[in-house]
Amino acid sequence: MPIIEMHLMTGRSVEQKRAVAAAITDAVCTTLGVKAETVRILVTEHGSEDFSVAGVTAGLRSEKQQVPEGI
Amino acid sequence: MPIIEMHLMTGRSVEQKRAVAAAITDAVCTTLGVKAETVRILVTEHGSEDFSVAGVTAGLRSEKQQVPEGI
Amino acid sequence: MPIIEMHLMTGRSVEQKRAVAAAITDAVCTTLGVKAETVRILVTEHGSEDFSVAGVTAGLRSEKQQVPEGI
Amino acid sequence: MPIIEMHLMTGRSVEQKRAVAAAITDAVCTTLGVKAETVRILVTEHGSEDFSVAGVTAGLRSEKQQVPEGI
Amino acid sequence: MPIIEMHLMTGRSVEQKRAVAAAITDAVCTTLGVKAETVRILVTEHGSEDFSVAGVTAGLRSEKQQVPEGI
Amino acid sequence: MPIIEMHLMTGRSVEQKRAVAAAITDAVCTTLGVKAETVRILVTEHGSEDFSVAGVTAGLRSEKQQVPEGI
Repeated sequence: MPIIEMHLMTGRSVEQKRAVAAAITDAVCTTLGVKAETVRILVTEHGSEDFSVAGVTAGLRSEKQQVPEGI
Repeated sequence: MPIIEMHLMTGRSVEQKRAVAAAITDAVCTTLGVKAETVRILVTEHGSEDFSVAGVTAGLRSEKQQVPEGI
Repeated sequence: MPIIEMHLMTGRSVEQKRAVAAAITDAVCTTLGVKAETVRILVTEHGSEDFSVAGVTAGLRSEKQQVPEGI
Repeated sequence: MPIIEMHLMTGRSVEQKRAVAAAITDAVCTTLGVKAETVRILVTEHGSEDFSVAGVTAGLRSEKQQVPEGI
Repeated sequence: MPIIEMHLMTGRSVEQKRAVAAAITDAVCTTLGVKAETVRILVTEHGSEDFSVAGVTAGLRSEKQQVPEGI
Repeated sequence: MPIIEMHLMTGRSVEQKRAVAAAITDAVCTTLGVKAETVRILVTEHGSEDFSVAGVTAGLRSEKQQVPEGI
């Protein structure tokens, strides 16, 4: 412990994933006083139809914003 | 909050995913009295060998049911 | 399936929990065409220091809002 | 219940997945005294850049180990 | 990895928790060929109003069954 | 998104929880280029019998280490 599950939208680069893993681990070690070896991070990526806010999926929200308003 | 993780078998259509996100959000807002903007839903899909009931994966169960019984 | 994990702030009543379980299950059955018996919902409650938005826990946010502004 | 979520690195065979589902279910039934029908297992697979220990993803760790040391 | 999250109803004894942790770990090591040191298990317990099947919480189901039928 | 679930052993102070929430959020925003408002962190605490490594719960491991070796 700590064991961390992070949910992301799909599409992050390898570099971003490596950077965020290192940065979160540093953040946790510094603030909780644990050894880095005890920190495990699991990333799960979600597609645009697999995440919603206010009942609207990211994919649907994206479509709607492409529609010019006021026409 | 609420933050909701929903596990589904793979294969739902975009329409189904949009409909279930909207319907769950309505259900939560009505019964818990929260604003829709606070409701987030994460969907994770699982393949037929990644879900089991009673120690039998959905894939294995499907195979077995294709075997004619009594022959 | 579906198996649903719902994260809530602590403090919901028994009546609210029963109502939301029934309402989410109805929402899922109607939109995904599954039988109610296949729907399982797990609720996990989180205290005010165990949920944060923008790096500020709900507890800290609550404290800050109690401080009169402009004094 | 019990409902079990198992996180694995990608790449397990169908045979391994079927074997581990059966074995975990047996383990749980024997020690907790529950019926097999109540045991559900969800598997989520993670790629090599989606799992890290000590802030280093499995992919980065693998790369580093391929570099000959001392040369 | 594997990292396993197990959801249980509240009320298991220390002995049961120790036994199921050992048994699941054995099951995973035997079937997946991993070292025991890589297996981590997290248990989360859920109260009777925090788990529902078919839209009915375990608590409500329990109450209903206490009502004598046929009277 | 990102939505982060962090599993900790019980016993962290309010100050530690507030510090780790702020630090993880900073780490994520810096490396992934997201706005802080999109980062949500859920903490779940686990007791000493609810976390095991290599099939041994933290509670059992703690007990064993109190037994003097070699006596």
